[in-house]
Amino acid sequence: MATPGRDNTTPKPGAGVRRRHLLFGGAAAGVGALAAVGTQLAGKPIPLLPSDSGDGANGARTVPFHGDRQAGVGTAAQAHGVFLALDLKEGTTPERLKSLLKLLSDDAANLTQGKAALADTEGELALRPARLTVTFGFGPGLFRVAGTVPVPDGVSGLPAFSIDKLVPEFCGGDLLLQICADDPLSVAHAQRMLLKDSRRFTTVRWAQTGFRRAYGTEQSGTTMRNLFGQMDGTSNPAPGSEEFERVVYGDGGTGSWAPHGTSLVIRRISMDLDKWDELDRSGREESVGRRLANGAPLTGTAEHDEPDFAAVTPVGFPVIADFAHLRRARPEDPSQRIFRRAFNYDSVPRAGSVSDSGLIFASYQADIGRQFVPIQRRLDELDLLNLWTTPVGSAVFAIPPGCAPGGFVGEGLFA
Amino acid sequence: MATPGRDNTTPKPGAGVRRRHLLFGGAAAGVGALAAVGTQLAGKPIPLLPSDSGDGANGARTVPFHGDRQAGVGTAAQAHGVFLALDLKEGTTPERLKSLLKLLSDDAANLTQGKAALADTEGELALRPARLTVTFGFGPGLFRVAGTVPVPDGVSGLPAFSIDKLVPEFCGGDLLLQICADDPLSVAHAQRMLLKDSRRFTTVRWAQTGFRRAYGTEQSGTTMRNLFGQMDGTSNPAPGSEEFERVVYGDGGTGSWAPHGTSLVIRRISMDLDKWDELDRSGREESVGRRLANGAPLTGTAEHDEPDFAAVTPVGFPVIADFAHLRRARPEDPSQRIFRRAFNYDSVPRAGSVSDSGLIFASYQADIGRQFVPIQRRLDELDLLNLWTTPVGSAVFAIPPGCAPGGFVGEGLFA
Repeated sequence: MATPGRDNTTPKPGAGVRRRHLLFGGAAAGVGALAAVGTQLAGKPIPLLPSDSGDGANGARTVPFHGDRQAGVGTAAQAHGVFLALDLKEGTTPERLKSLLKLLSDDAANLTQGKAALADTEGELALRPARLTVTFGFGPGLFRVAGTVPVPDGVSGLPAFSIDKLVPEFCGGDLLLQICADDPLSVAHAQRMLLKDSRRFTTVRWAQTGFRRAYGTEQSGTTMRNLFGQMDGTSNPAPGSEEFERVVYGDGGTGSWAPHGTSLVIRRISMDLDKWDELDRSGREESVGRRLANGAPLTGTAEHDEPDFAAVTPVGFPVIADFAHLRRARPEDPSQRIFRRAFNYDSVPRAGSVSDSGLIFASYQADIGRQFVPIQRRLDELDLLNLWTTPVGSAVFAIPPGCAPGGFVGEGLFA
Repeated sequence: MATPGRDNTTPKPGAGVRRRHLLFGGAAAGVGALAAVGTQLAGKPIPLLPSDSGDGANGARTVPFHGDRQAGVGTAAQAHGVFLALDLKEGTTPERLKSLLKLLSDDAANLTQGKAALADTEGELALRPARLTVTFGFGPGLFRVAGTVPVPDGVSGLPAFSIDKLVPEFCGGDLLLQICADDPLSVAHAQRMLLKDSRRFTTVRWAQTGFRRAYGTEQSGTTMRNLFGQMDGTSNPAPGSEEFERVVYGDGGTGSWAPHGTSLVIRRISMDLDKWDELDRSGREESVGRRLANGAPLTGTAEHDEPDFAAVTPVGFPVIADFAHLRRARPEDPSQRIFRRAFNYDSVPRAGSVSDSGLIFASYQADIGRQFVPIQRRLDELDLLNLWTTPVGSAVFAIPPGCAPGGFVGEGLFA
């Protein structure tokens, strides 16, 4: 539903935010909707089924697709994830974009619930979703095609960072599909279905495939390790917590570009495992500020101990060094927090090398400029880990709210 | 230990077999060793642990590394597999080869048991092996470097097949490492460790990464589906069965190139999913000769029903057509059986495409020439599936026997 008398071609400062809040489920974002978040939140840890024997039960698990918010953000991270960035074909009209989003939402609604998609020619591959989620993200180009809403601030692009060595084949994109499941066949089938239904409208810009620990390998809730062997994601806000709400959705959407919307930064970070190997164990622990064995800060004994940045050694040096990743990444300002949902990647080694490995760093936050950028600026200025890591890909996407049955993700763009 | 007075540079017919049987554990291959197979066989289905809750238990599972036979053949196929083909560097001496095999066997013995490898700099990544196996295969070049044993017949290469469109980057290799586990991080870490310890001796020729259903997605024992949606591997001999013994090890090694040895053919088979999509369901079922829903032959109702090749339709056509994959692949001669242990692959789509998918077809058999080649010849002559599948890679390896603690895989080459 268009707002009469509004001229969207020349947005006034602040007008974009208001317009977005109007378009994207503004009506639903009242008290009732907020109260419903608790029950609809896809991110609640999924309890083990009573009959769970580890023998097939996880394949049947589903994560709801419909809701105020998209799944795949607060959802406990699955073992496998693929990030697909698509570009809309030249001359895509808003009507075509709408058709695409309807089609993909319908596919995702079926596949995530263990049902064959509408035009699914390998429907048997859909029957064990294993917590499949499909999360849609909108890049600047998609907002421009829709033409109703200005590109949200942080989504128009990140500032340049001196550590970056970006290659174009891992940057940008109009439409992101984040497909995650505990089963690689489930991911592969969903990827194929969604790309098949996209190809009349889009071209594949890039694809990044990643993994975490498989289902059943570790107790659920164990912090993942990256390919440096480090615990990765220790101080992440817990989905369902007040902090998570504030960090990811900006307190019910007031701090984000749209109610129940958030935004995603994807950075492909190449990790030089050979160079890392040259570093001894204490050197590694100092560079991060945490112990390798259990992820405890160097001033503590357990993973979730609060780091004591004031602690000094007997000779007066800080226990957690100034250059340590932990100190540089951890903001003193609590508004500068992010929610990480990263995956390891381990590609086929290039000629003459024995590994091409790294991290698909995925950071969710309500406001990229206020939350992500200051952290990244500090890491850009000083972080010992920069010696071994190089960002080679970078892309930002607005994550729109979810949709109700019969609706589609992104419907707010066409309201 | 060299056999005095033997001239290995001009082997007589049959001498190679005798020599290999002498070198490779000939002494151990007596009655006692055969009786021990039952207990040492790595391929026994691994029972669910009594306390298995699906929550971490699978990560702790280990498959024995030491034994008469290598693990990773009869072992129930894991969810993830990588096949690495290495080439020995120019001028590698037998002594250097021996050092390499000792080093890698030691790494594998540790990693598969959930222990850090000797020079492991990310030891924490080794602690959850999730049924990790490392299986070594020897290509023709490795036998030539060792210089003690002629290249086993079938391993010197396959005949040319008219359907093949082989690309060199997926063919050949001196040393194969087949690394499999239910956890992708476990595989990635083992791959890195083994390649690190190999690189002074070898270069990476090719790497192929594949997957099957994840642990916990389906009931164990469920036949896997490939990316065409077909059940793949229905009529496989069951590890532990007499048929498996005969097919893979040739009745206690008498039919294979070495006692407790076998051989492996790896074919990378590209599957044209787009073209496959054009085929309707009954066309797909006819091309394979099995039903998509449950893998039953078209003459039966359940997956493991024996196909009735004589059955005809009311108008007199065979129910399972002459061109059907099932009929072409299934030998009437029971000596022409193989044991398949395939993995799906789903690579990043090439520009303009939406998938680059297929099968890493891995076939174990005692005698490649007698078992694999006749089947492949029949498929080459006529198999409707050839319309949608193209072999793009091909490699053959002798799989040597296993080793005892303190020994190493391939020690028979240096006896």
